[in-house]
Amino acid sequence: MAASTNGTLTVTTNGGNGALQLKPTPSNPLPFVALKTGLCYDVRMRYHAKVVNSQSDYTDPHPEDPRRVYRIYKALAEAGLVPLNGASGAALIESTLMQLVPAREATKEEVTLTHSNEHWEFIKRTATMSNEELLDETKYGDSVYFNNDSWFCAKLSCGGVIDTCKAVVEQKVKNAIAVVRPPGHHADPGKPAGFCMFNNVAVASRVILKEYPEQIKKILILDWDIHHGNGTQRAFYNDPNVLYISLHRYDGGKFYPGTTFANYDKCGEGAGEGRTVNIPWPRGGMQDGDYIYAFQRVVMPIAQEFNPDLVILSSGFDAAPGDELGECFVSPAAYGHMTHMLKSLASGKLAVVLEGGYNLDSIATSALGVTKVLVGDAPIPLTNVYAQNDAVQTVDSVIKCQAKYWKCMKIGRMVRDLPGAPAAERLHDVIRRYQSVQLFTSCSMTSLPIFRDRVSRSFDEQVLCSPGFQSAKKVVVIVHDAPQVWTEPDSVTGKISLHESFLLDGAVKYVQWARAQGYGVLDINAPELYTDQDEDGLNPQAAIQDLCIYVWDNYLELSDAKIFVFLSVGDAAAGVVYLLGHREVRGRVRTSITFAGKHALHAIMPIMDEFIIDWYHKNSRIYTYEAPVAPGGSGPGSSGSVAAAKGPKKRFGNVVKTTTENMNELMIDKFTEVTALIENEIAEDESESDVEPERKRARTVTGEN
Amino acid sequence: MAASTNGTLTVTTNGGNGALQLKPTPSNPLPFVALKTGLCYDVRMRYHAKVVNSQSDYTDPHPEDPRRVYRIYKALAEAGLVPLNGASGAALIESTLMQLVPAREATKEEVTLTHSNEHWEFIKRTATMSNEELLDETKYGDSVYFNNDSWFCAKLSCGGVIDTCKAVVEQKVKNAIAVVRPPGHHADPGKPAGFCMFNNVAVASRVILKEYPEQIKKILILDWDIHHGNGTQRAFYNDPNVLYISLHRYDGGKFYPGTTFANYDKCGEGAGEGRTVNIPWPRGGMQDGDYIYAFQRVVMPIAQEFNPDLVILSSGFDAAPGDELGECFVSPAAYGHMTHMLKSLASGKLAVVLEGGYNLDSIATSALGVTKVLVGDAPIPLTNVYAQNDAVQTVDSVIKCQAKYWKCMKIGRMVRDLPGAPAAERLHDVIRRYQSVQLFTSCSMTSLPIFRDRVSRSFDEQVLCSPGFQSAKKVVVIVHDAPQVWTEPDSVTGKISLHESFLLDGAVKYVQWARAQGYGVLDINAPELYTDQDEDGLNPQAAIQDLCIYVWDNYLELSDAKIFVFLSVGDAAAGVVYLLGHREVRGRVRTSITFAGKHALHAIMPIMDEFIIDWYHKNSRIYTYEAPVAPGGSGPGSSGSVAAAKGPKKRFGNVVKTTTENMNELMIDKFTEVTALIENEIAEDESESDVEPERKRARTVTGEN
Repeated sequence: MAASTNGTLTVTTNGGNGALQLKPTPSNPLPFVALKTGLCYDVRMRYHAKVVNSQSDYTDPHPEDPRRVYRIYKALAEAGLVPLNGASGAALIESTLMQLVPAREATKEEVTLTHSNEHWEFIKRTATMSNEELLDETKYGDSVYFNNDSWFCAKLSCGGVIDTCKAVVEQKVKNAIAVVRPPGHHADPGKPAGFCMFNNVAVASRVILKEYPEQIKKILILDWDIHHGNGTQRAFYNDPNVLYISLHRYDGGKFYPGTTFANYDKCGEGAGEGRTVNIPWPRGGMQDGDYIYAFQRVVMPIAQEFNPDLVILSSGFDAAPGDELGECFVSPAAYGHMTHMLKSLASGKLAVVLEGGYNLDSIATSALGVTKVLVGDAPIPLTNVYAQNDAVQTVDSVIKCQAKYWKCMKIGRMVRDLPGAPAAERLHDVIRRYQSVQLFTSCSMTSLPIFRDRVSRSFDEQVLCSPGFQSAKKVVVIVHDAPQVWTEPDSVTGKISLHESFLLDGAVKYVQWARAQGYGVLDINAPELYTDQDEDGLNPQAAIQDLCIYVWDNYLELSDAKIFVFLSVGDAAAGVVYLLGHREVRGRVRTSITFAGKHALHAIMPIMDEFIIDWYHKNSRIYTYEAPVAPGGSGPGSSGSVAAAKGPKKRFGNVVKTTTENMNELMIDKFTEVTALIENEIAEDESESDVEPERKRARTVTGEN
Repeated sequence: MAASTNGTLTVTTNGGNGALQLKPTPSNPLPFVALKTGLCYDVRMRYHAKVVNSQSDYTDPHPEDPRRVYRIYKALAEAGLVPLNGASGAALIESTLMQLVPAREATKEEVTLTHSNEHWEFIKRTATMSNEELLDETKYGDSVYFNNDSWFCAKLSCGGVIDTCKAVVEQKVKNAIAVVRPPGHHADPGKPAGFCMFNNVAVASRVILKEYPEQIKKILILDWDIHHGNGTQRAFYNDPNVLYISLHRYDGGKFYPGTTFANYDKCGEGAGEGRTVNIPWPRGGMQDGDYIYAFQRVVMPIAQEFNPDLVILSSGFDAAPGDELGECFVSPAAYGHMTHMLKSLASGKLAVVLEGGYNLDSIATSALGVTKVLVGDAPIPLTNVYAQNDAVQTVDSVIKCQAKYWKCMKIGRMVRDLPGAPAAERLHDVIRRYQSVQLFTSCSMTSLPIFRDRVSRSFDEQVLCSPGFQSAKKVVVIVHDAPQVWTEPDSVTGKISLHESFLLDGAVKYVQWARAQGYGVLDINAPELYTDQDEDGLNPQAAIQDLCIYVWDNYLELSDAKIFVFLSVGDAAAGVVYLLGHREVRGRVRTSITFAGKHALHAIMPIMDEFIIDWYHKNSRIYTYEAPVAPGGSGPGSSGSVAAAKGPKKRFGNVVKTTTENMNELMIDKFTEVTALIENEIAEDESESDVEPERKRARTVTGEN
């Protein structure tokens, strides 16, 4: 206590004549540095256990296993941080780096600051229940179990956490870790749940705020247990003085506790609005790089803006490799780095509290990684530093949502729902309309009517054709994705400047060329379909496949054209490949050229024509992106290049590698090559037009649809 | 030494029976924690001083002042980190937290790993030069001074830094700070410069890489001196194994050393390409929030991806408040937080080396802030956490540039120069063309010819008019900025989806309304002008002012209209206010309504008509944004709302506050109100059209232009 007030170390008050073994001397200038790391551990917390009811309880013990706390203590002891003959305060005092924080039973007054009387009384009753009653409660409760010692252990665990936080606040220790069970973060104010009886961290927070009103006004609770701490979030949902930040698996709401209360859009309410931050991972398999990224982009900036007086870490270790519930890969190194970052807050006042984590080896090594950094060791260098795409997307959703509440999250974003919607027009439609005007002016292209059940403005002028293309002998069919817009949003406001934004549409160049050659031209634009949360839209690939079939059946097949050449760009290629496989095309289609770039390759399906695969491999060219060996270990992992890397089968056509990353660039680069190829195909065809009947005979119908 | 090898603490080798006052015992599990922080300091470094040549040398001493190192030592001593009777190794041994690293003279072999022989020989000669020669060298050198002790001090400073780094690498100390002078980071391999003789950090890095080839393969040099470390950057510009990151004032290349070598686009070359990262601040006045932001967004992600084996910090303290050269405001707290972040790299192997910093008090408190964190104290909580806009923009340019080399910098960005430019069209032109088509279709609006010297496609169809508007009696003139596009770039690729991007153009609604009323309509679009670095474009405000005057002189004044109503949106309003002030308009203009939102307000200038100010105040309405009290301390600081808050004078017109942030939303919200107002103005006018002559008489010409 004295340490915090007059800056000198008074041994008696902080119970640590072991604190760095210093004689209290003015030559100890930094009392904080002189302090040890607190450890709360009590063997008696192992009494709480599942009532053994069947053979399987022996062979397949409950994951919240009494050995959890011991295995962590043992790991600390084996690392030399605490004595192996451990767990007695006397022994710990001998440790040079850590200091025992004795556990004691929490009082009713403390617990009921957070929990209801009924809740308290219910847990109390479990102490005197018969095994049958206990088993019933276990059966009908929300994944909790009880024995007659649960009541005692729950109080001991909770009281231990309270005193751990007090020791940190009073600077009896510089920071601390409470290795306790049962855990707490699922326990609601009203009921136990998820292996949790009392919400240790929530109770401790309330006690601290009540007992140190001057010193501790704001608390940050950081919860990196792989499960959402629904109980803790609930306890402070309306409280502006407690910032709850949780990183957890969400899996679209399916992961325990399985409600949308864990989603990123739950930000607190009332006075507590903006004081809840959820980072909901979409799946298992999250790694160091994902967590470090979330810390650098969201956790630390928000924490620094909030500027807490105390940090309590709800530290489950079920995101560690080997945890069968979490299925993630957060290494001891990453746990160390995150702990190191949190140490920079609140003048180092950090209390770590064990929550979940069920692989006994994993929680031991993870807890050791955290504790070493608490004591003052440097974190182990990270080996995995790359955030995965869906982690980046998740973090981005969080930033977007939190930008309403935190200035640091507002940087580079336009924060609002679509404003002034009444006067809003989809940019895709604006641009397509513009293009049709341009193509009409430059190539007198006109719109071809497309009748579909689902009419959206996105289909207006989706297909443009050259005048009288029905009677053209040679037709170039260009099927492309919506053109790309290159822009750089303002790094502060996130707005884009129309003057510094550019429309990139390589396809136009080909349309103009084909017209100049006097070929008939069909220009098919494949919009990616816009779907908001509510409405479930047409799958884009299905849409372009339907469209290509529709155009073939209603226009191309009936036209006078002897020769078709297909030119497809990006995802739209799926439509062409589908068409070539589902209709009899070999007689009239001479070649199919695809600018795939980083987009996925598509295998042709021989539905109508068994020879189509060979034909396609012989008469196609697919330009696909192959990453050059890039510095900084960078390089794309797109399905396209992966497929290419595997060495695609004939079904994928004649695949040609290119290192041009950008579609538009690719189309410009290959312009001469591709146009020459097309002219050549067409010429060659004229010469051998006599073999035409021959080809026709070769065809066989293998199906109908 | 032994500490690094067998993990137990051998007192004798690391000279620290004081190391945490531990008896060497197996119960010391974390040798790193047991180590002290090294301090290299030697009073003899004060011998290097400017040859006193004039009275002013006394009254106005050179900033690189011998007292610099002493004042830092004194601050550490006063904080109790080292003995006050300081600087002797013997005394330091007594310290509980720090340990002396004795300085010694660097050898020629060491120095010439980085510097040329000539360089070495030249500095050597200064030891025997006459005062006249020394003063000449000072006069003609690149801001360096010499006396006969400079040679010795330069070697001592350099040797001290080498041994400081060695002590860290060999884990004789856990980390260290070298309080040395002369500094080094401006010294080129070929010549001394900027108060620097030998490049201490560069020389030490080369020595370490040479002598510990197995242990130290990659070094990160982080340079936060306010000046760019041109010498260090030069020394490793081609070296892939040394990553040089510098945060410094750039001021468009004007700040010392005053070359573009310090700009963000200088990223190294050859094998070293991508191993130089410059963060060039545009001005003085940078603060904690800017540095922390740069660390979180660029420095730490890149450093973690690089994963160095040793971190050397070129630590000038001239970004601290009170430094007259730096003029920035980086607090001891921020220095502590940045040090804390760097401690997480390279297993804590961090060597801090003094560079510049010339306010004796500032460098002392800053160095203390750094040293406390090195020793193990928690950094002081940050009070300033907000990055300034131009800091964000600077960091963004760095990210954009570094994205070519670092995967972590690639996230959320389209990395390339404008691709496939041949087929690129400015989005502004695309959209304006679309609008003219739409307005032609819906309101048969057509383009009005505008002749200007500087013709850009951006001016095509800039002014649209209703058919026969010249003969319309009532004309609504709508002057607006280019419409806004709302979009959200993909958080991974930075691409924007045209389907999820929206064109927001509230102006169209007013055009359609005015046409429906049978009014003549003029629709003037004010493009923000696109200007790239090279070409200096027309100032947008001047452009719209010219245009409004042009339209008035060539069309409006000559038209038959008795009544004009002006409706202006955003920055374009500047043109209308300018016009109203520079032409005689009261006779025919009834009202001027402006949607200003967050845009700046404009005061009218009574050039032609002294009564125009009262008239404008009476006959205008300017909707301006006023920030509601926002949570999270956020809220806009736009000039618009500021001007409004000040309570604008009559010259600004009749200003009405609104809390609608978005322009487009604002125009939709106020549609009924504004259209009613306009109709009312026009109606009222018809009733009192007899007073028309009266008004005319009231006018007086007060000027010409």
